[in-house]
Amino acid sequence: LDITQLIRAARGDRPVDLLLTDARIIDVFTGRIINGHIAIFDGHIAGIGDYPAERTISLGNRFVAPGFIDAHVHIESAKVSVAEFARAVLPRGTTTVIADPHEIANVLGTDGIAWMLAEAERQPMTLLFALPSCVPATSMETSGAVLDAESLAPFLSHERIVGLGEMMNFPGVLSGDNDVMEKIRNAHAHRKPVDGHAPGLSGRDLAAYVAAGISTDHETVSADEAMEKLSAGMYIMIREGTGARNLDALIPVITPYTEPYLMLCTDDRHPSDIVTEGHIDFLIRKAVRAGVDPMAAIRMATINPARCFGLTRTGAVAPGRRADLVVLSDLETLSVEQVYSGGILVAENGEMHPAIETPRTRPCPSAMHVRPGALDLSILADGKNIRVIELIPDQIVTRQRIMEAAVTDRFAVSDPGRDLLKMVVVERHKGTGNIGKGFVTGFGLLKGALASSVAHDSHNIIAVGVDDADIRAAIAAVIEREGGLVVVSGGQVDAALALPIAGLMATEPLARVREQFDALNHAACALGARPADPFMILSFLALPVIPELKLTDRGPFDVTQFAHVPLFAE
Amino acid sequence: LDITQLIRAARGDRPVDLLLTDARIIDVFTGRIINGHIAIFDGHIAGIGDYPAERTISLGNRFVAPGFIDAHVHIESAKVSVAEFARAVLPRGTTTVIADPHEIANVLGTDGIAWMLAEAERQPMTLLFALPSCVPATSMETSGAVLDAESLAPFLSHERIVGLGEMMNFPGVLSGDNDVMEKIRNAHAHRKPVDGHAPGLSGRDLAAYVAAGISTDHETVSADEAMEKLSAGMYIMIREGTGARNLDALIPVITPYTEPYLMLCTDDRHPSDIVTEGHIDFLIRKAVRAGVDPMAAIRMATINPARCFGLTRTGAVAPGRRADLVVLSDLETLSVEQVYSGGILVAENGEMHPAIETPRTRPCPSAMHVRPGALDLSILADGKNIRVIELIPDQIVTRQRIMEAAVTDRFAVSDPGRDLLKMVVVERHKGTGNIGKGFVTGFGLLKGALASSVAHDSHNIIAVGVDDADIRAAIAAVIEREGGLVVVSGGQVDAALALPIAGLMATEPLARVREQFDALNHAACALGARPADPFMILSFLALPVIPELKLTDRGPFDVTQFAHVPLFAE
Repeated sequence: LDITQLIRAARGDRPVDLLLTDARIIDVFTGRIINGHIAIFDGHIAGIGDYPAERTISLGNRFVAPGFIDAHVHIESAKVSVAEFARAVLPRGTTTVIADPHEIANVLGTDGIAWMLAEAERQPMTLLFALPSCVPATSMETSGAVLDAESLAPFLSHERIVGLGEMMNFPGVLSGDNDVMEKIRNAHAHRKPVDGHAPGLSGRDLAAYVAAGISTDHETVSADEAMEKLSAGMYIMIREGTGARNLDALIPVITPYTEPYLMLCTDDRHPSDIVTEGHIDFLIRKAVRAGVDPMAAIRMATINPARCFGLTRTGAVAPGRRADLVVLSDLETLSVEQVYSGGILVAENGEMHPAIETPRTRPCPSAMHVRPGALDLSILADGKNIRVIELIPDQIVTRQRIMEAAVTDRFAVSDPGRDLLKMVVVERHKGTGNIGKGFVTGFGLLKGALASSVAHDSHNIIAVGVDDADIRAAIAAVIEREGGLVVVSGGQVDAALALPIAGLMATEPLARVREQFDALNHAACALGARPADPFMILSFLALPVIPELKLTDRGPFDVTQFAHVPLFAE
Repeated sequence: LDITQLIRAARGDRPVDLLLTDARIIDVFTGRIINGHIAIFDGHIAGIGDYPAERTISLGNRFVAPGFIDAHVHIESAKVSVAEFARAVLPRGTTTVIADPHEIANVLGTDGIAWMLAEAERQPMTLLFALPSCVPATSMETSGAVLDAESLAPFLSHERIVGLGEMMNFPGVLSGDNDVMEKIRNAHAHRKPVDGHAPGLSGRDLAAYVAAGISTDHETVSADEAMEKLSAGMYIMIREGTGARNLDALIPVITPYTEPYLMLCTDDRHPSDIVTEGHIDFLIRKAVRAGVDPMAAIRMATINPARCFGLTRTGAVAPGRRADLVVLSDLETLSVEQVYSGGILVAENGEMHPAIETPRTRPCPSAMHVRPGALDLSILADGKNIRVIELIPDQIVTRQRIMEAAVTDRFAVSDPGRDLLKMVVVERHKGTGNIGKGFVTGFGLLKGALASSVAHDSHNIIAVGVDDADIRAAIAAVIEREGGLVVVSGGQVDAALALPIAGLMATEPLARVREQFDALNHAACALGARPADPFMILSFLALPVIPELKLTDRGPFDVTQFAHVPLFAE
């Protein structure tokens, strides 16, 4: 951006590139609707009013909001590339996201962050990032990288890095852990805020967490929780993702006093929900239907996150700001009719404009240090009873259940008759050869196996199956695709989705990914899988921070005791 | 601040220093009044609630607001030292100011800024600074320093420097001047905002000024002007100083939508007004009396400026923030009963607490490169008519008037019978020997002379008088005091106020300064001076940016033509 030329354009001393006439501009600063023309130069708004212009387009008195901002999102959760994510959310009016590349950083470390930053340069939207603060989430599993304060520091001066990402390690904050404190201190030294992640934190612990210098929270689920966190000085990001949906509960929190401290975010939203419901536009519509003033709803999705993250050149239809514009039908249905990003019409009527090409994403090499042929998946029976992960329908928390082992020829094996299935977590990053082995009940498979390179947060290869041959074949199929989700039966791949970007994201178009995802679910169901979204459930079975029993590459893990435990119980 | 210990205190793992019980806390984030106890550790708020404490004081259910913030002030205008300024405003509840040391920088350059930063360390309040952006204001007079982008750059990383100060040079912005652009760019690179100074700027010029990256304005005088600037994305600082009083006119602008973008400031407020009316507390009371919601008024003076300038550790009664607290009688009269700064009771019932000592300020050496005995004050008559500065009562703008010169012995002289008085501006910084010579009408002196080292913006020595002997004596008296204001008649000093800090500020206590100031006005009046505040009027007669005719050290200056003009007219 050449400011000197922008100043000339703003003064009318040179023609602007584009004049959008007859707009009803939603002025997020004063709450007024301003009838005017929007002059655009070099991707930015030069001024509002009549200007000499190379090109003029009438907006026919439609409403124009600033482009929407998702204040907190994990792009990896959409399982598509950055380019495909942009193509999915832009038609919905989201022109800026603050993404936390936590998943890819767990796999690839700083290379993963650097890759996301590089991809961001190539997209027709503004991708900003919060630097992942907790890689790995715990030391209880083997991750692809350990990002300490020193390794994060060089990123803090990058202009696309607008803050430190969600500080999930609140025990580390509350105990004043040195490395955690240094990460926070470094972000503040760059005058960049620190995102919180403080589900249910309250009272003195909340005070300590905020006093440490943490500014935002997106894990708030109730109005009382929100009011306490607001009073403590936190900005609240109201989240409406695919799994966690907190908007309805937080509607009562939105008042003229609190609104400047509120933002909207999706956190984790699956492609199918983006396609069917929408993105930030869906949250705005849902809020307005629930009685929220449309101006307040739009402020929460535009200028408020811009202020929170110090983004002075976005978030409003005003001089000097990026010409990110959402043309809306009206202020009731809030239907997104056109989207301009950086002054370019990128989407219309829910579809990307045909002229907007996004470069096809190259895979990002991901370590798969596993030789499937050499894997010893057997479990020597070392007792009568075993600790089994018991699924709770539609939840990612699990229970620990003691069941009698099924033993064949001195080895503990699956027993589909009792819905007892073998699970393994194969370390893929460092070539340690670690294999966590355990059992799960509630998964329902009667034959075959599922395997996945998406396994929060370290994303080792996780597999579940009826016999070792299919489990091994499923793992081999994942490795062959440099990452992915597969369903195998009788040694054959029934369905697969390749995720060659760090083992987390596909390179194929969103529509194709959705098809393959549907086929995977169908194939898993055909083998007897009981969860509606078996790969989602599987992806959380290695995460050692959500109770009660999990399996990491180092074996069964009791989250309540926060310690590994033997598979065989007394 | 040791964050680790603050975290421990917040968790209750160690006793806090002080627990203020039974407070009705004004929660600026939610608009609620919260009944609770305020736990203070190491000058900061550890938490709200019951805490183990070394000491407990009950606030008897009084209201507690966050300490007030003056968003834009020139401390030099109070003519007292930084310490005396602090002692004046703290009892009024102002615990933080964002000061622009523009005046001292014009005299002493970066040394002046460094001196203010050093003084700030010794005060019982939080003194933050905006870096003076326009030193000198113009090149039409000889200032003590020229501060270009390069000389300002090292200050931008200082934690007390929170922004770039008022960008008065809007022609420089609008023309894309390289040095101006670099100053703005450098501030942005440090993620610090740039204050504007844009009286009446509108339309395309306003768009250009904002597009350049300027964030705030404190020169707004009407509601329409405010709404236009808000819509353009500017924060508006509502000013109520001694001269400029804009609050009444801007009351209609305050709505729930605009309020987060509004702040309060004093800009220039004389000690007597601080003593009789108050400081930011006066603005809050005046706003509330005019019908503004007290919560909104308090937000404009606390969390709003904190957000605007990225001050995350002030502006609210919340964990981790500085324990700057204003104990108020009620929310109607808003009388300031007690003031805590950094957790210490610094003032009560309008007086500084006796235990709070502020170090006596040492003078700051200021150049006085003038030898009074060698000054040639004579004006050789070079024509019949002269360009005379005509005062307009109660205004700082002047008119140019052509009058016939009074000539004695080939020299143009004062003619008190026609209220025609000689004026001189003696360059004091560089020893150039420059003496600007001219005439003024409307000043009214019948005998004697006035001289002052306060002469905006370069602060050379300005004097007006009936005969050269008294003018010379007055200049000599100023120099003898290392700066000051003096009234002389018959070669004797009738009254004087020494301003040995850069020739701008006294070292004596505020009360003594007021006395001396009153004595000066009295003495000037006795000599016939017509302006109510003759030294204030005198101080603006060298400022070459306010129309119509001024006098700099290089001679008469026509502001409309923006050029020096000969004293003698055709």
